[in-house]
Parts: sequence; structure tokens; C-alpha cells
Amino acid sequence: MSVYFYGCISLDGYLATKDHDLTWLYESGTTESTGYDKFYEKMDIVMMGRKTFNEILKVGQPYQFYPKTKNYVFTSDTTIRQKGFEFINQDVVEFIKTLDKNKNIWIVGGNTLVAPLLDHDLIDVMYIQIAPVLLGEGISLFTQKAQLKRYELKKVHQYDQFAELIYYKK
Amino acid sequence: MSVYFYGCISLDGYLATKDHDLTWLYESGTTESTGYDKFYEKMDIVMMGRKTFNEILKVGQPYQFYPKTKNYVFTSDTTIRQKGFEFINQDVVEFIKTLDKNKNIWIVGGNTLVAPLLDHDLIDVMYIQIAPVLLGEGISLFTQKAQLKRYELKKVHQYDQFAELIYYKK
Repeated sequence: MSVYFYGCISLDGYLATKDHDLTWLYESGTTESTGYDKFYEKMDIVMMGRKTFNEILKVGQPYQFYPKTKNYVFTSDTTIRQKGFEFINQDVVEFIKTLDKNKNIWIVGGNTLVAPLLDHDLIDVMYIQIAPVLLGEGISLFTQKAQLKRYELKKVHQYDQFAELIYYKK
Repeated sequence: MSVYFYGCISLDGYLATKDHDLTWLYESGTTESTGYDKFYEKMDIVMMGRKTFNEILKVGQPYQFYPKTKNYVFTSDTTIRQKGFEFINQDVVEFIKTLDKNKNIWIVGGNTLVAPLLDHDLIDVMYIQIAPVLLGEGISLFTQKAQLKRYELKKVHQYDQFAELIYYKK
């Protein structure tokens, strides 16, 4: 099993503005030319927090973006229904340990999932795309505990105005 | 006149730990193979804050690192003397406006200089090197005011374990 983070941040490290807006990201250009298709092809399971899910709801039918994966949303409100998604009220660290060891898991966001997984050294690979934008404030991707963690920089790409950095756990 | 930021941060955006330690950076490998020599060759003036200067003092004779530039340290304590450096108690934004328009200025750090310069759109080029390390807390490079600012991603390099992103002001 490998756990991946794959997602975009501003140059100053934010996943979104304070009110979870992503307009700045959509206006940074398309990511059509990136390795996204190849990445998604490898994934078996997708996980995200409720706020990330809400953002996806705004731009289309969520199952169309994640058509072939088993998709989980972590939320205290498990009464939500949405085609192709399961809503669970569980600890992400505990939940991930129950999964089939041969599966690839994509953590879409947000930081409320990423932080505990980093704290437990459970993220194996990070694909971080950096948009050429400073926001000055917002929701930080990295809110894990203060502790030095080293990764291995595997590769650097430039996709139009996005820089992509790929890191592996050491 | 062009104003450059050229410096290294952790993957989570820190210039240094809370107590200004840079051991994590020195242990990330050398930057010998980077474009540093070519960059420094172009510079006429170097500016830094007092804490950045203190860090440089720890690793050697400061003038040996900046031998051919006019070097300024911004500090309230202008009684300090150090070969090759001038210690000034001025507002960096006001000071920079008084300088020869044909000069290239390198802002070495820290965020107390970078933030007001970003707020006034006075940084023309940013060379940001990212070390493959998460710290979890520290002194952030980007502490400018909340305001969306777009840059142009010119180039992406990989120098061993460092990713270098080069941005131009739009």
C-alpha cells in the first residue's frame, strides 16, 4: 500500500483562501498537460475531507472526477448521500490501517487529513504543484506537528505556470 | 534597478527554525552545483536583516561571502562594526527608493525585509530553493499582507535535493 498526496498550493503554501475559495487556482491556468491522468490511473482509493468535497461539488458531479476509485469523505455528518462516495466518521490514521495493503490511496485534501497522516509518517509520496500566486493568508497544506522530517526529491517538472515537485518518504 | 530574493526554504515554507537554526538546511546537501556564482556575479548591493547577518557570522567571515557587493544590514543597533558591511536603521522600502536605478539588489533575508518589499511590489525576481524537509514550525519566508499577487514562473531546476523555482513579477 502506498499513500499519496497529490495537489496544488500557492507559492506561500496555501491550499485555499480562508473561506475555501479556489478561484486563484482556476485562474492560474489548466493542469491538462500534467501527469494527472497517469497518476489517477494508478489509484485505487480516494480520500478527502468534507470541505474539499464541498469545493468539488461546486464544479461538477463528484463521481465524474473520481470514476474508477473507491471514494471516501471524512465527515461527522454521515447522513450525506452522493453517487460514488462513502461518508465516514472515522480517524483517518486508524481507518487507513484497515485497508488492503496492495492498494494505492490518494489523499486529495485537506490539511485535516494530511496533518495526522504526516504526523504518523503515513504519506509515502507527495506530488506538490505550486501555483505562481501569493495569497498572504489561507488554509495551509502543512499543519503537521513541529518535527523535522526528511523526504527525497525525486523529480521536478514545469507544467506551464505550475511547478511540480515529487517527494518520497525516506 | 532590479530587486531579487534568492534563498532557501523548507518544503513547508520556513527560512529557519523558531530559534533561527539552519542545521536542517546545511544537512540537506550542498548548493555548490547551483547557479549561485552566476547569480552573485550580477548583484551590486546586498541587504539583510540582523538575524540573517547573525547566522552568517556563525559560519564564517561575512565579507568573504559577499566580497564584491555593497552590503547593508538593517538593524536598530547601528553601533555594530563589521568589515565590508554597513549597519543602517532605516525603512527598507524608503531606503531602496534612494538607490541607483541601475543596480541589482539581492535581499538575502529575512522575512522582515521581504514582507514590506512584497507589500509594495518591490521584489522583481525570486529565486526560491526548496529543501526536502518539513519543519512543522519556524520563521516563514512569506509573511506579507493578505493580498493576491501573481508572478510568472520562468524556470524550474533540480539541483540534487533542492528544487529551484524562479519567478518574475508580472
